[in-house]
Amino acid sequence: MSVTSINTRNQFKGQIVAIKRGEIVSEVEIETSAGIISAVVTTSSLQRLNLRVGNAALALFKATEVMIAKLADD
Amino acid sequence: MSVTSINTRNQFKGQIVAIKRGEIVSEVEIETSAGIISAVVTTSSLQRLNLRVGNAALALFKATEVMIAKLADD
Amino acid sequence: MSVTSINTRNQFKGQIVAIKRGEIVSEVEIETSAGIISAVVTTSSLQRLNLRVGNAALALFKATEVMIAKLADD
Amino acid sequence: MSVTSINTRNQFKGQIVAIKRGEIVSEVEIETSAGIISAVVTTSSLQRLNLRVGNAALALFKATEVMIAKLADD
Amino acid sequence: MSVTSINTRNQFKGQIVAIKRGEIVSEVEIETSAGIISAVVTTSSLQRLNLRVGNAALALFKATEVMIAKLADD
Amino acid sequence: MSVTSINTRNQFKGQIVAIKRGEIVSEVEIETSAGIISAVVTTSSLQRLNLRVGNAALALFKATEVMIAKLADD
Repeated sequence: MSVTSINTRNQFKGQIVAIKRGEIVSEVEIETSAGIISAVVTTSSLQRLNLRVGNAALALFKATEVMIAKLADD
Repeated sequence: MSVTSINTRNQFKGQIVAIKRGEIVSEVEIETSAGIISAVVTTSSLQRLNLRVGNAALALFKATEVMIAKLADD
Repeated sequence: MSVTSINTRNQFKGQIVAIKRGEIVSEVEIETSAGIISAVVTTSSLQRLNLRVGNAALALFKATEVMIAKLADD
Repeated sequence: MSVTSINTRNQFKGQIVAIKRGEIVSEVEIETSAGIISAVVTTSSLQRLNLRVGNAALALFKATEVMIAKLADD
Repeated sequence: MSVTSINTRNQFKGQIVAIKRGEIVSEVEIETSAGIISAVVTTSSLQRLNLRVGNAALALFKATEVMIAKLADD
Repeated sequence: MSVTSINTRNQFKGQIVAIKRGEIVSEVEIETSAGIISAVVTTSSLQRLNLRVGNAALALFKATEVMIAKLADD
């Protein structure tokens, strides 16, 4: 069975441009058309997916996780 | 005291292009340079901030909320 | 480009057994081998994926979202 | 088996002072010593716990969910 | 005052089978009837709860944190 | 453009009283009128904001991230 689609609308395609490995979690930077999206994932999942700098990747986050700040027109 | 900066790196500036109001939560769409970011926020906070279509806004989400999917080069 | 794998380890296969539709968000119940996993997703994503009762589905959640409670051996 | 302790450090005791019921999710306000903490939970869990205004309750949230904003000393 | 019930429906009983300790956060694996649920919690909370391999534990996560992927019937 | 307001209602003002630095993530404790709120943020964002013990800060978390536990009146 393969994944055909994922429910969240917030899906941004890009390329992995940096990986900072830690013992338990690692920080991954994905360059998308809007700039860098930063993700913190378990190092074990990084290894399981064999994620490397240069890989094509999708950054996904749920709408319920997004906060909105109002900006002043200064 | 005013907010000078917010810790999360994932901050995307854009314009509110759609608001779908619900009783308890509402869905807000923010047009950013990478496309639409969808946020679900409480309707009470929508009213408190007096958020309207056309407002300049910032979509914020933490790195720990981001999942990564590996893409095949098909 | 299709999704080959998703980083989170918490992925549970099951079948959609109930969908309670709301205006903005909907509650979806997925019967897995450990019992029902309940998900709240935007109704717009439910429609976009054309999710229906009976569909095979994967429930995904990040390790950073999981709380642990210690149980007494009463 | 009963819960003896829950891992998250962010646990705030208070009293439920308002419940706004929705079809799928409901907004619950808990008055704590620091003021109101607002929670959005599924209406089904509200019913299952038989939560009412006046109940003693604990608001829990993980450290990974907390954003920090730096304040100017204006 | 003791906890009688917690609102989230997603509660899975199991046994702690592995703990990978890090400086700030640690990864805990809980064997449930559906397989392993992985949790990342602060190391300080791990110590406060004195969580050990072999302990009975409950893995809890909110419905709003769950993403759904549709599976192809290949 | 500066931030005028942030949507989440859960905003607690306080002072940073402890920072435990890790390689990838760090734990920050903010003393508020309700007690300590603990936040786990990326160490890179800690450096970018130049957050120090003694700074005035705001702890922010979304209502959808809050779990509710019912307390017994023992």
